[in-house]
Amino acid sequence: MADIPTAAISRLVTYLRILEQLEAQDVSRTSSNDLAERANVTPFQVRKDLAYFGRFGTRGMGYTVAVLKRELVRVLGLNQTWNVVIIGMGRLGQAIANYPATDYRFEYVGAFDIHPDLVGTTVRGLEVQHTNQLAHFVQQQAHTPGRVDMGFIAVPPESGQAAAQALVGAGVKGILNFAPVVIQPRTLERAGHHEVSEEWHGVIIENVDFLAGMKRLAFYILNPQLKITDSEEHL
Amino acid sequence: MADIPTAAISRLVTYLRILEQLEAQDVSRTSSNDLAERANVTPFQVRKDLAYFGRFGTRGMGYTVAVLKRELVRVLGLNQTWNVVIIGMGRLGQAIANYPATDYRFEYVGAFDIHPDLVGTTVRGLEVQHTNQLAHFVQQQAHTPGRVDMGFIAVPPESGQAAAQALVGAGVKGILNFAPVVIQPRTLERAGHHEVSEEWHGVIIENVDFLAGMKRLAFYILNPQLKITDSEEHL
Repeated sequence: MADIPTAAISRLVTYLRILEQLEAQDVSRTSSNDLAERANVTPFQVRKDLAYFGRFGTRGMGYTVAVLKRELVRVLGLNQTWNVVIIGMGRLGQAIANYPATDYRFEYVGAFDIHPDLVGTTVRGLEVQHTNQLAHFVQQQAHTPGRVDMGFIAVPPESGQAAAQALVGAGVKGILNFAPVVIQPRTLERAGHHEVSEEWHGVIIENVDFLAGMKRLAFYILNPQLKITDSEEHL
Repeated sequence: MADIPTAAISRLVTYLRILEQLEAQDVSRTSSNDLAERANVTPFQVRKDLAYFGRFGTRGMGYTVAVLKRELVRVLGLNQTWNVVIIGMGRLGQAIANYPATDYRFEYVGAFDIHPDLVGTTVRGLEVQHTNQLAHFVQQQAHTPGRVDMGFIAVPPESGQAAAQALVGAGVKGILNFAPVVIQPRTLERAGHHEVSEEWHGVIIENVDFLAGMKRLAFYILNPQLKITDSEEHL
Protein backbone atom coordinates (compact mmCIF):
# COMPACT_ATOMS: atom_id res chain seq x y z
CA MET A 1 0.00 0.00 0.00
CA ALA A 2 1.27 3.49 -0.80
CA ASP A 3 2.27 5.97 1.90
CA ILE A 4 -0.86 7.54 3.30
CA PRO A 5 -0.84 11.13 4.52
CA THR A 6 -2.28 11.60 8.01
CA ALA A 7 -4.60 14.22 6.55
CA ALA A 8 -6.24 11.50 4.43
CA ILE A 9 -7.07 9.54 7.59
CA SER A 10 -8.58 12.65 9.16
CA ARG A 11 -10.69 13.11 6.05
CA LEU A 12 -11.86 9.47 6.09
CA VAL A 13 -13.15 10.07 9.61
CA THR A 14 -14.95 13.19 8.37
CA TYR A 15 -16.49 11.27 5.45
CA LEU A 16 -17.70 8.64 7.92
CA ARG A 17 -19.29 11.34 10.08
CA ILE A 18 -21.02 12.81 7.02
CA LEU A 19 -22.29 9.34 6.01
CA GLU A 20 -23.72 8.88 9.52
CA GLN A 21 -25.47 12.25 9.22
CA LEU A 22 -26.83 11.33 5.77
CA GLU A 23 -28.07 8.00 7.12
CA ALA A 24 -29.78 9.80 10.03
CA GLN A 25 -31.51 11.94 7.38
CA ASP A 26 -32.60 8.81 5.47
CA VAL A 27 -30.43 9.70 2.48
CA SER A 28 -29.40 6.44 0.84
CA ARG A 29 -27.16 7.58 -2.05
CA THR A 30 -24.26 9.99 -2.27
CA SER A 31 -21.44 10.91 -4.64
CA SER A 32 -17.88 12.15 -4.44
CA ASN A 33 -19.21 15.61 -5.42
CA ASP A 34 -21.72 15.59 -2.57
CA LEU A 35 -19.21 14.29 0.00
CA ALA A 36 -16.65 16.81 -1.23
CA GLU A 37 -19.01 19.73 -0.83
CA ARG A 38 -20.01 18.68 2.69
CA ALA A 39 -16.38 18.03 3.71
CA ASN A 40 -15.07 21.18 2.03
CA VAL A 41 -12.56 19.40 -0.22
CA THR A 42 -12.43 18.64 -3.95
CA PRO A 43 -14.23 15.62 -5.45
CA PHE A 44 -10.83 14.44 -6.72
CA GLN A 45 -9.56 14.45 -3.13
CA VAL A 46 -12.52 12.31 -1.98
CA ARG A 47 -11.90 9.75 -4.73
CA LYS A 48 -8.17 9.72 -4.06
CA ASP A 49 -8.63 9.26 -0.29
CA LEU A 50 -11.05 6.38 -0.79
CA ALA A 51 -8.83 4.79 -3.45
CA TYR A 52 -6.12 4.11 -0.86
CA PHE A 53 -8.42 1.47 0.57
CA GLY A 54 -10.20 -0.07 -2.38
CA ARG A 55 -12.98 0.56 -4.88
CA PHE A 56 -16.16 1.52 -3.12
CA GLY A 57 -18.44 2.90 -5.80
CA THR A 58 -19.38 2.26 -9.38
CA ARG A 59 -17.92 4.81 -11.74
CA GLY A 60 -20.51 7.49 -12.47
CA MET A 61 -23.01 5.87 -10.12
CA GLY A 62 -21.86 7.25 -6.79
CA TYR A 63 -22.06 5.39 -3.51
CA THR A 64 -24.67 3.67 -1.40
CA VAL A 65 -24.49 5.46 1.95
CA ALA A 66 -24.91 2.29 4.06
CA VAL A 67 -22.31 0.35 2.06
CA LEU A 68 -19.68 3.08 2.04
CA LYS A 69 -20.26 3.68 5.74
CA ARG A 70 -19.82 -0.03 6.51
CA GLU A 71 -16.61 -0.10 4.48
CA LEU A 72 -15.17 2.95 6.24
CA VAL A 73 -16.10 1.44 9.62
CA ARG A 74 -14.14 -1.66 8.62
CA VAL A 75 -11.15 0.30 7.24
CA LEU A 76 -10.96 2.38 10.43
CA GLY A 77 -11.24 -0.71 12.66
CA LEU A 78 -14.44 0.52 14.31
CA ASN A 79 -16.17 -2.88 14.03
CA GLN A 80 -14.04 -4.15 16.91
CA THR A 81 -13.86 -3.24 20.59
CA TRP A 82 -11.19 -0.82 21.78
CA ASN A 83 -10.48 -0.69 25.50
CA VAL A 84 -9.39 2.63 26.90
CA VAL A 85 -7.83 3.87 30.13
CA ILE A 86 -7.93 7.56 31.03
CA ILE A 87 -5.07 9.21 32.90
CA GLY A 88 -6.26 12.38 34.60
CA MET A 89 -9.76 12.37 36.06
CA GLY A 90 -10.16 16.07 36.76
CA ARG A 91 -12.79 18.08 34.90
CA LEU A 92 -11.43 17.15 31.47
CA GLY A 93 -11.13 13.40 32.18
CA GLN A 94 -14.62 13.39 33.67
CA ALA A 95 -16.03 15.27 30.68
CA ILE A 96 -14.46 12.73 28.33
CA ALA A 97 -15.64 9.71 30.32
CA ASN A 98 -19.17 11.06 30.55
CA TYR A 99 -19.47 12.39 27.03
CA PRO A 100 -22.76 11.04 25.67
CA ALA A 101 -21.66 10.18 22.17
CA THR A 102 -18.93 7.59 22.59
CA ASP A 103 -20.03 5.86 19.45
CA TYR A 104 -18.76 2.55 18.13
CA ARG A 105 -17.12 0.12 20.49
CA PHE A 106 -14.80 2.20 22.63
CA GLU A 107 -14.99 0.98 26.23
CA TYR A 108 -13.49 2.75 29.23
CA VAL A 109 -11.89 0.04 31.39
CA GLY A 110 -9.76 2.08 33.78
CA ALA A 111 -9.42 5.60 35.21
CA PHE A 112 -6.29 6.95 36.91
CA ASP A 113 -5.16 10.08 38.69
CA ILE A 114 -2.53 11.05 41.24
CA HIS A 115 -4.67 13.47 43.22
CA PRO A 116 -5.81 12.07 46.60
CA ASP A 117 -9.20 13.84 46.26
CA LEU A 118 -9.91 11.90 43.07
CA VAL A 119 -8.41 8.48 43.79
CA GLY A 120 -11.18 6.22 45.08
CA THR A 121 -14.03 8.25 43.58
CA THR A 122 -16.24 6.67 40.93
CA VAL A 123 -16.65 8.12 37.44
CA ARG A 124 -19.09 6.46 35.05
CA GLY A 125 -18.89 3.26 37.07
CA LEU A 126 -15.07 3.19 37.16
CA GLU A 127 -13.20 3.53 40.43
CA VAL A 128 -10.37 6.02 39.96
CA GLN A 129 -7.06 4.31 40.79
CA HIS A 130 -3.73 5.90 41.61
CA THR A 131 -1.57 6.26 38.49
CA ASN A 132 1.16 4.25 40.21
CA GLN A 133 -1.21 1.24 39.81
CA LEU A 134 -1.32 1.66 36.03
CA ALA A 135 1.43 -0.79 35.06
CA HIS A 136 -0.01 -3.44 37.38
CA PHE A 137 -3.50 -2.89 35.95
CA VAL A 138 -2.35 -3.09 32.32
CA GLN A 139 -0.40 -6.27 33.02
CA GLN A 140 -3.33 -7.85 34.86
CA GLN A 141 -5.68 -7.14 31.96
CA ALA A 142 -3.23 -8.13 29.25
CA HIS A 143 -4.61 -11.57 28.45
CA THR A 144 -8.25 -10.85 29.20
CA PRO A 145 -11.01 -9.34 27.04
CA GLY A 146 -10.35 -6.15 29.05
CA ARG A 147 -6.89 -5.78 27.50
CA VAL A 148 -5.90 -2.09 27.36
CA ASP A 149 -5.63 -0.87 23.76
CA MET A 150 -5.42 2.89 24.24
CA GLY A 151 -4.64 5.46 26.89
CA PHE A 152 -6.12 8.93 26.97
CA ILE A 153 -4.07 11.68 28.58
CA ALA A 154 -6.26 14.31 30.24
CA VAL A 155 -3.79 15.79 32.74
CA PRO A 156 -2.56 19.39 33.06
CA PRO A 157 0.09 20.31 30.48
CA GLU A 158 3.05 20.02 32.85
CA SER A 159 2.13 16.38 33.56
CA GLY A 160 1.53 15.33 29.96
CA GLN A 161 4.98 13.92 29.28
CA ALA A 162 5.00 11.94 32.56
CA ALA A 163 1.54 10.50 31.85
CA ALA A 164 2.72 9.40 28.41
CA GLN A 165 5.78 7.76 29.92
CA ALA A 166 3.57 5.94 32.46
CA LEU A 167 1.36 4.59 29.67
CA VAL A 168 4.22 3.60 27.40
CA GLY A 169 6.16 2.09 30.30
CA ALA A 170 3.07 0.00 31.07
CA GLY A 171 3.07 -1.25 27.49
CA VAL A 172 0.24 0.83 26.02
CA LYS A 173 1.00 1.59 22.37
CA GLY A 174 -1.82 3.96 21.45
CA ILE A 175 -2.21 7.38 23.05
CA LEU A 176 -4.83 10.05 22.57
CA ASN A 177 -3.26 13.13 24.08
CA PHE A 178 -5.50 15.99 25.22
CA ALA A 179 -2.71 17.85 27.02
CA PRO A 180 -1.31 20.80 25.06
CA VAL A 181 2.22 19.45 24.84
CA VAL A 182 4.15 17.80 22.03
CA ILE A 183 5.07 14.48 23.63
CA GLN A 184 8.60 13.29 22.90
CA PRO A 185 9.71 9.65 23.05
CA ARG A 186 12.25 8.87 25.76
CA THR A 187 15.75 8.67 24.36
CA LEU A 188 18.77 6.90 25.79
CA GLU A 189 22.32 7.90 25.12
CA ARG A 190 24.23 5.03 23.61
CA ALA A 191 27.73 5.22 22.20
CA GLY A 192 27.53 8.99 22.07
CA HIS A 193 24.21 9.39 20.29
CA HIS A 194 20.57 9.41 21.30
CA GLU A 195 18.33 6.48 20.58
CA VAL A 196 14.62 6.15 21.15
CA SER A 197 14.23 3.79 24.09
CA GLU A 198 12.73 0.43 23.22
CA GLU A 199 9.35 0.75 24.91
CA TRP A 200 8.60 3.70 22.63
CA HIS A 201 8.97 1.69 19.42
CA GLY A 202 5.64 1.47 17.65
CA VAL A 203 3.93 3.97 19.95
CA ILE A 204 1.27 6.01 18.19
CA ILE A 205 0.19 9.39 19.51
CA GLU A 206 -2.82 11.32 18.31
CA ASN A 207 -3.35 14.81 19.65
CA VAL A 208 -6.66 16.46 20.46
CA ASP A 209 -5.44 19.87 21.46
CA PHE A 210 -8.13 22.48 21.86
CA LEU A 211 -5.61 25.25 22.49
CA ALA A 212 -4.14 24.43 19.08
CA GLY A 213 -7.64 24.66 17.61
CA MET A 214 -8.05 28.12 19.14
CA LYS A 215 -4.81 29.24 17.53
CA ARG A 216 -5.73 27.92 14.10
CA LEU A 217 -9.05 29.72 14.39
CA ALA A 218 -7.31 32.98 15.35
CA PHE A 219 -5.14 32.68 12.25
CA TYR A 220 -8.12 32.08 9.95
CA ILE A 221 -10.13 34.96 11.41
CA LEU A 222 -7.13 37.23 11.00
CA ASN A 223 -6.57 36.20 7.39
CA PRO A 224 -9.97 36.07 5.69
CA GLN A 225 -8.39 36.88 2.35
CA LEU A 226 -6.20 33.77 2.30
CA LYS A 227 -7.06 30.92 0.05
CA ILE A 228 -7.01 27.96 2.39
CA THR A 229 -7.43 24.45 1.13
CA ASP A 230 -8.10 21.18 2.88
CA SER A 231 -6.72 19.39 -0.13
CA GLU A 232 -3.13 18.38 -0.09
CA GLU A 233 -2.30 19.10 -3.67
CA HIS A 234 -3.14 22.12 -5.68
CA LEU A 235 -5.23 20.69 -8.47
CA MET B 1 0.13 34.86 -1.15
CA ALA B 2 -0.13 31.29 -2.40
CA ASP B 3 -2.89 28.93 -1.34
CA ILE B 4 -2.04 27.53 2.06
CA PRO B 5 -3.09 24.03 3.02
CA THR B 6 -4.88 23.80 6.36
CA ALA B 7 -2.35 21.15 7.37
CA ALA B 8 0.40 23.79 7.14
CA ILE B 9 -1.44 25.94 9.68
CA SER B 10 -1.77 22.95 12.02
CA ARG B 11 1.95 22.36 11.69
CA LEU B 12 2.75 26.06 12.41
CA VAL B 13 0.85 25.67 15.68
CA THR B 14 2.87 22.54 16.45
CA TYR B 15 6.14 24.33 15.66
CA LEU B 16 5.09 27.12 18.02
CA ARG B 17 4.36 24.58 20.77
CA ILE B 18 7.78 23.00 20.24
CA LEU B 19 9.46 26.42 20.38
CA GLU B 20 7.68 27.11 23.69
CA GLN B 21 8.95 23.80 25.04
CA LEU B 22 12.49 24.55 23.84
CA GLU B 23 12.33 27.97 25.47
CA ALA B 24 11.15 26.38 28.73
CA GLN B 25 14.23 24.14 28.52
CA ASP B 26 16.47 27.19 27.95
CA VAL B 27 17.36 26.07 24.43
CA SER B 28 18.06 29.21 22.41
CA ARG B 29 18.81 27.86 18.92
CA THR B 30 17.06 25.36 16.68
CA SER B 31 17.08 24.24 13.04
CA SER B 32 14.63 22.91 10.51
CA ASN B 33 16.12 19.45 11.11
CA ASP B 34 15.53 19.69 14.85
CA LEU B 35 12.00 21.08 14.47
CA ALA B 36 11.24 18.43 11.86
CA GLU B 37 12.35 15.59 14.09
CA ARG B 38 10.31 16.88 17.03
CA ALA B 39 7.24 17.48 14.86
CA ASN B 40 7.60 14.21 12.96
CA VAL B 41 7.79 15.80 9.51
CA THR B 42 10.60 16.34 7.00
CA PRO B 43 12.99 19.32 7.25
CA PHE B 44 11.83 20.33 3.76
CA GLN B 45 8.26 20.50 5.07
CA VAL B 46 9.32 22.77 7.94
CA ARG B 47 11.10 25.16 5.59
CA LYS B 48 8.20 25.13 3.14
CA ASP B 49 5.62 25.81 5.86
CA LEU B 50 7.62 28.73 7.24
CA ALA B 51 8.30 30.09 3.77
CA TYR B 52 4.59 30.87 3.27
CA PHE B 53 5.05 33.65 5.80
CA GLY B 54 8.49 35.06 5.22
CA ARG B 55 12.14 34.34 5.80
CA PHE B 56 12.80 33.57 9.43
CA GLY B 57 16.29 32.10 9.55
CA THR B 58 19.66 32.52 7.96
CA ARG B 59 20.46 29.80 5.48
CA GLY B 60 22.59 27.16 7.17
CA MET B 61 22.43 29.00 10.51
CA GLY B 62 19.10 27.77 11.81
CA TYR B 63 16.76 29.83 13.94
CA THR B 64 16.83 31.74 17.20
CA VAL B 65 14.09 30.14 19.28
CA ALA B 66 12.83 33.41 20.77
CA VAL B 67 12.76 35.18 17.39
CA LEU B 68 11.02 32.38 15.51
CA LYS B 69 8.52 32.02 18.35
CA ARG B 70 7.76 35.75 18.28
CA GLU B 71 7.29 35.63 14.51
CA LEU B 72 4.93 32.65 14.68
CA VAL B 73 2.96 34.37 17.46
CA ARG B 74 2.57 37.35 15.15
CA VAL B 75 1.66 35.24 12.09
CA LEU B 76 -0.96 33.34 14.07
CA GLY B 77 -2.43 36.53 15.54
CA LEU B 78 -1.69 35.51 19.11
CA ASN B 79 -0.28 38.90 20.07
CA GLN B 80 -3.81 40.28 20.19
CA THR B 81 -6.78 39.58 22.46
CA TRP B 82 -9.46 37.16 21.28
CA ASN B 83 -12.79 37.24 23.12
CA VAL B 84 -14.65 33.97 23.34
CA VAL B 85 -18.16 32.87 24.26
CA ILE B 86 -18.90 29.26 25.11
CA ILE B 87 -22.22 27.63 24.18
CA GLY B 88 -22.84 24.59 26.35
CA MET B 89 -21.75 24.77 29.98
CA GLY B 90 -22.12 21.12 30.94
CA ARG B 91 -19.07 19.07 31.89
CA LEU B 92 -17.27 19.79 28.63
CA GLY B 93 -17.90 23.55 28.63
CA GLN B 94 -16.84 23.74 32.28
CA ALA B 95 -13.68 21.73 31.58
CA ILE B 96 -12.81 24.09 28.72
CA ALA B 97 -13.51 27.26 30.73
CA ASN B 98 -11.47 26.00 33.68
CA TYR B 99 -8.60 24.49 31.73
CA PRO B 100 -5.43 25.87 33.32
CA ALA B 101 -3.39 26.49 30.20
CA THR B 102 -5.38 29.02 28.23
CA ASP B 103 -2.22 30.59 26.96
CA TYR B 104 -1.94 33.79 24.97
CA ARG B 105 -4.72 36.29 25.06
CA PHE B 106 -7.90 34.28 24.78
CA GLU B 107 -10.52 35.71 27.14
CA TYR B 108 -13.84 34.09 27.99
CA VAL B 109 -16.43 36.86 27.97
CA GLY B 110 -19.71 34.91 27.96
CA ALA B 111 -21.11 31.47 28.79
CA PHE B 112 -24.45 30.14 27.54
CA ASP B 113 -26.62 27.09 27.97
CA ILE B 114 -30.30 26.19 27.60
CA HIS B 115 -30.53 23.94 30.65
CA PRO B 116 -32.39 25.55 33.61
CA ASP B 117 -30.00 23.85 36.09
CA LEU B 118 -27.04 25.63 34.50
CA VAL B 119 -28.45 29.05 33.61
CA GLY B 120 -27.62 31.44 36.47
CA THR B 121 -24.71 29.41 37.81
CA THR B 122 -21.22 30.89 37.73
CA VAL B 123 -18.30 29.26 35.92
CA ARG B 124 -14.85 30.85 36.19
CA GLY B 125 -16.46 34.13 37.15
CA LEU B 126 -18.96 34.13 34.27
CA GLU B 127 -22.68 33.92 34.91
CA VAL B 128 -24.19 31.34 32.57
CA GLN B 129 -26.88 33.01 30.45
CA HIS B 130 -29.66 31.38 28.48
CA THR B 131 -28.66 30.79 24.87
CA ASN B 132 -31.67 32.85 23.75
CA GLN B 133 -29.75 35.87 25.15
CA LEU B 134 -26.78 35.24 22.87
CA ALA B 135 -27.73 37.56 19.99
CA HIS B 136 -28.52 40.38 22.42
CA PHE B 137 -25.21 39.84 24.24
CA VAL B 138 -23.15 39.81 21.04
CA GLN B 139 -24.85 42.98 19.80
CA GLN B 140 -24.35 44.73 23.14
CA GLN B 141 -20.64 43.91 23.16
CA ALA B 142 -20.09 44.68 19.48
CA HIS B 143 -18.49 48.09 19.83
CA THR B 144 -16.76 47.53 23.17
CA PRO B 145 -13.39 45.97 23.99
CA GLY B 146 -15.43 42.87 24.95
CA ARG B 147 -16.47 42.32 21.31
CA VAL B 148 -17.10 38.62 20.68
CA ASP B 149 -14.54 37.19 18.27
CA MET B 150 -15.15 33.46 18.61
CA GLY B 151 -17.75 31.02 19.83
CA PHE B 152 -16.95 27.60 21.22
CA ILE B 153 -19.59 24.90 20.81
CA ALA B 154 -19.55 22.42 23.69
CA VAL B 155 -23.07 21.03 23.46
CA PRO B 156 -24.21 17.44 22.91
CA PRO B 157 -23.93 16.29 19.29
CA GLU B 158 -27.65 16.63 18.50
CA SER B 159 -27.51 20.33 19.44
CA GLY B 160 -24.31 21.19 17.56
CA GLN B 161 -25.94 22.48 14.40
CA ALA B 162 -28.43 24.64 16.36
CA ALA B 163 -25.64 26.13 18.50
CA ALA B 164 -23.72 27.00 15.34
CA GLN B 165 -26.79 28.66 13.86
CA ALA B 166 -27.28 30.66 17.07
CA LEU B 167 -23.68 31.90 16.92
CA VAL B 168 -23.73 32.70 13.22
CA GLY B 169 -27.16 34.32 13.49
CA ALA B 170 -25.72 36.53 16.24
CA GLY B 171 -22.92 37.58 13.89
CA VAL B 172 -20.05 35.48 15.26
CA LYS B 173 -17.75 34.49 12.39
CA GLY B 174 -15.30 32.15 14.11
CA ILE B 175 -16.39 28.84 15.62
CA LEU B 176 -14.42 26.21 17.49
CA ASN B 177 -16.68 23.18 17.40
CA PHE B 178 -16.20 20.46 20.02
CA ALA B 179 -19.43 18.63 19.11
CA PRO B 180 -18.88 15.54 16.97
CA VAL B 181 -20.92 16.76 14.03
CA VAL B 182 -19.95 18.21 10.68
CA ILE B 183 -21.67 21.58 10.77
CA GLN B 184 -23.32 22.64 7.54
CA PRO B 185 -24.04 26.25 6.58
CA ARG B 186 -27.71 27.12 6.30
CA THR B 187 -28.87 27.15 2.71
CA LEU B 188 -31.86 28.90 1.21
CA GLU B 189 -33.66 27.76 -1.89
CA ARG B 190 -33.65 30.48 -4.48
CA ALA B 191 -34.82 30.10 -8.07
CA GLY B 192 -34.65 26.32 -7.76
CA HIS B 193 -31.14 25.97 -6.35
CA HIS B 194 -29.62 26.12 -2.89
CA GLU B 195 -27.56 29.07 -1.81
CA VAL B 196 -25.62 29.53 1.40
CA SER B 197 -27.56 32.04 3.44
CA GLU B 198 -25.87 35.40 3.85
CA GLU B 199 -25.00 35.27 7.55
CA TRP B 200 -22.83 32.21 6.83
CA HIS B 201 -20.56 34.03 4.38
CA GLY B 202 -17.07 34.21 5.80
CA VAL B 203 -17.81 31.90 8.74
CA ILE B 204 -14.82 29.83 9.79
CA ILE B 205 -15.25 26.56 11.64
CA GLU B 206 -12.45 24.64 13.30
CA ASN B 207 -13.25 21.25 14.75
CA VAL B 208 -11.80 19.75 17.91
CA ASP B 209 -13.44 16.35 17.80
CA PHE B 210 -12.10 13.86 20.27
CA LEU B 211 -14.27 11.06 18.92
CA ALA B 212 -12.58 11.64 15.56
CA GLY B 213 -9.20 11.42 17.33
CA MET B 214 -10.20 8.06 18.82
CA LYS B 215 -11.08 6.76 15.36
CA ARG B 216 -7.81 7.91 13.82
CA LEU B 217 -5.96 6.23 16.66
CA ALA B 218 -7.89 2.97 16.12
CA PHE B 219 -6.88 3.04 12.45
CA TYR B 220 -3.19 3.60 13.25
CA ILE B 221 -3.11 0.86 15.89
CA LEU B 222 -4.76 -1.52 13.45
CA ASN B 223 -2.31 -0.69 10.66
CA PRO B 224 1.17 -0.58 12.18
CA GLN B 225 2.70 -1.62 8.86
CA LEU B 226 1.42 1.44 7.01
CA LYS B 227 3.78 4.17 6.08
CA ILE B 228 2.03 7.26 7.36
CA THR B 229 3.36 10.70 6.70
CA ASP B 230 2.52 14.09 8.13
CA SER B 231 4.04 15.66 5.06
CA GLU B 232 1.79 16.56 2.22
CA GLU B 233 4.03 15.62 -0.62
CA HIS B 234 5.99 12.46 -1.02
CA LEU B 235 9.54 13.71 -1.26
